[in-house]
Amino acid sequence: MKMYDIIDKKRQGYQLNKNEIEYFIKEYVKNNIPDYQVSALLMAICLKGMTDEEITDLTIAMANSGDTLDLSQINGITVDKHSTGGVGDKTTLIVGPIVASLGCKVAKMSGKGLGFTGGTIDKLESIDGYKTNIKRQDFLNQVNKIGISLISQSENLVPADKKIYALRDVTATVNSIPLIASSIMSKKIAAGSKCILLDVKVGSGAFMKTIEDATKLAQTMVNIGNMAGRETKAVITNMDIPLGHEIGNILEVKEAIDVLKGNGPEDLTYICIELATYMYMMCTKKSKEESMALVKKALNDGSAFKKFRELVIAQGGNVNLIDNPELFLKPKYTIELKAKNSGYIEHIDTGKIGIISCNLGAGRNKKEDAIDYTAGITITAKTGEFVNKGDVIAKLYTSKKFDIQELNDMYLNAITISKKQPPKPQMIYKIID
Amino acid sequence: MKMYDIIDKKRQGYQLNKNEIEYFIKEYVKNNIPDYQVSALLMAICLKGMTDEEITDLTIAMANSGDTLDLSQINGITVDKHSTGGVGDKTTLIVGPIVASLGCKVAKMSGKGLGFTGGTIDKLESIDGYKTNIKRQDFLNQVNKIGISLISQSENLVPADKKIYALRDVTATVNSIPLIASSIMSKKIAAGSKCILLDVKVGSGAFMKTIEDATKLAQTMVNIGNMAGRETKAVITNMDIPLGHEIGNILEVKEAIDVLKGNGPEDLTYICIELATYMYMMCTKKSKEESMALVKKALNDGSAFKKFRELVIAQGGNVNLIDNPELFLKPKYTIELKAKNSGYIEHIDTGKIGIISCNLGAGRNKKEDAIDYTAGITITAKTGEFVNKGDVIAKLYTSKKFDIQELNDMYLNAITISKKQPPKPQMIYKIID
Repeated sequence: MKMYDIIDKKRQGYQLNKNEIEYFIKEYVKNNIPDYQVSALLMAICLKGMTDEEITDLTIAMANSGDTLDLSQINGITVDKHSTGGVGDKTTLIVGPIVASLGCKVAKMSGKGLGFTGGTIDKLESIDGYKTNIKRQDFLNQVNKIGISLISQSENLVPADKKIYALRDVTATVNSIPLIASSIMSKKIAAGSKCILLDVKVGSGAFMKTIEDATKLAQTMVNIGNMAGRETKAVITNMDIPLGHEIGNILEVKEAIDVLKGNGPEDLTYICIELATYMYMMCTKKSKEESMALVKKALNDGSAFKKFRELVIAQGGNVNLIDNPELFLKPKYTIELKAKNSGYIEHIDTGKIGIISCNLGAGRNKKEDAIDYTAGITITAKTGEFVNKGDVIAKLYTSKKFDIQELNDMYLNAITISKKQPPKPQMIYKIID
Repeated sequence: MKMYDIIDKKRQGYQLNKNEIEYFIKEYVKNNIPDYQVSALLMAICLKGMTDEEITDLTIAMANSGDTLDLSQINGITVDKHSTGGVGDKTTLIVGPIVASLGCKVAKMSGKGLGFTGGTIDKLESIDGYKTNIKRQDFLNQVNKIGISLISQSENLVPADKKIYALRDVTATVNSIPLIASSIMSKKIAAGSKCILLDVKVGSGAFMKTIEDATKLAQTMVNIGNMAGRETKAVITNMDIPLGHEIGNILEVKEAIDVLKGNGPEDLTYICIELATYMYMMCTKKSKEESMALVKKALNDGSAFKKFRELVIAQGGNVNLIDNPELFLKPKYTIELKAKNSGYIEHIDTGKIGIISCNLGAGRNKKEDAIDYTAGITITAKTGEFVNKGDVIAKLYTSKKFDIQELNDMYLNAITISKKQPPKPQMIYKIID
């Protein structure tokens, strides 16, 4: 078999067979195929597409390119959840403890943030002492004991994705549904859970800009998961508006605690209840009504919050911070931004807000960048709210030197203020199963 | 400017501007852009195409990436001719001397053969003593003195094409009209002649398999040439049938001498008269009728042959061989292949014949391969001819060990014999100007 022929076949728009896809992945991971051949194939895939069969073969070949997690030691049904990446998305910190408190098993590996999107691992690491890198057997034991463990991805999980993603990132081949879907699903399949809920975000703060594209991606991933023998569903959610009010690692942990205590913002609480309901339904086959009632109960009676405390304790985090969030570290500077005009907040370009937060120190522009856990943004006026000229619309936190004029301009450039009240945004667009 | 953005723009199907194209070529030649980014761009160009404006910008940027020939010292109108590559195509050896004998200036650089196509330089080097690598000033002086010089391409002619072609060759991006056209035309433009005649071959022994594709390529190249200020025309010719009877370097030189002496095969003589006529017309603006009469006269009165002798002498070749072609070296073995059935030769897969000739030693599979100038094929029964079972249909020449059964099978596999006489093949399909 020759890589040349595989590239040529895809360039002409033909379907690659399983052997060809396995050969490409195996030999690329072994460094037997040069990057310049792989980038040509990736571009051909971008422009010619792949069938569901090809995408599934690619995903399985990638999943098998390194370590795969064997969760068979875990008693009970394992459930994983994945977000395609958003701004202020702290739902994993909330839905994981909810469903674990209801008996589902959450043995979950998460990634770090890059660019405008945050990562669950960074949020967890902002809790002093919390270890995200623990031994495989300890991880399994913890899930059996308390029902949940949230750790970082093991080094050798899907090495094919690491190599391919790095190449896509510099060859303008990121934006391809077959490549996005296989990248995400290969990691979910290698990570071993039986049930997988996908939160596919759409809007200005997400990679997918239209509901149509998000639906295509979601349907593709659900098909792959099901063909690979995993119960898979997807929820298409609105990322045209940040989730909750807080963006930045410590800020988001605090807001997650608010939700777990029943005091969180309405939109975030609503999304978390929906996500947790679907996760619970997949594990138990119970009806939506029954599942949702149990999820709400777990939030209201404190059992979800209790589970979060157990998780933090089990992984070495300082539980004092969870009980007294005012003890978390604070940033050097707080900057209040004010409205220049009166009116309704019509739209917030969530991607731009993510970039501002990243630049304040809350995220990484490059993989090697250090994170300031205290940095971030509190959005005090969200989409649909009325503000008077001079009202505080956002608080920015940083420990870096800053130019207040520049920050003000950047933030104002990300929002639109209008005389007319906009309609209430829909938070969940669709369920794909 | 970033290469990433250039790739992304082309992936989305937008037109690249001149600055972007110049940046890509300049920085790639300086090794500042990695191959894996360039191969992604090349694949995007293959699949999304380029406008005539983009192709012209690309061609000019490539032409300027290394040395360009200044032919202004030459008195008279310079004319170049390029064949897109065929089997048994020895026309340059014939039309160059014809038009030079009529006063046109032929200051021409040619390439070596690769794969099933031969190269003019290899044919010239099969003449003992003929130097293809001579000093720039001597080259110009020779053209001023005798009207013609045929040499090999200078080392630093269009380095961008050398790098891009090597990458296309391993990334399945050879088959793209914008890339083929810019590769050919950048070399023609850098080589400096005022008039350019393109011989675009179509059929089983050519890269273009259909008249439609050949027309597109021809039209694209003519547009580029004219936009770059060169008078450019293209002739679309039949390569579904080898030109003349001889394939292989010494064999082709001998057949060229036959044509120059007025004793050549009909099809080859006809094509050479047509090509020479268009070259002369471009230089002089005379009518086709007048031009063709002069071309025929140059063949008939011996002035074209005389010019070829002058060329060989000027470049150090042994003119004795030209005067007494029977003195050329001979191969170790001659193998006669015989018809298995009686009937008309209906079709000859010319590409396959080229591959057999290459394997006999007449060509190169890789750039580094040595050539056996004596090897090759004489086709004794061409398309349309009737053969009886047992008639010799081809003579194969080689100095390598061979398996007669295998050669027989390969050759018979390349031809079709039919009970019905096929129509006479058309040799010239179209003129593009």
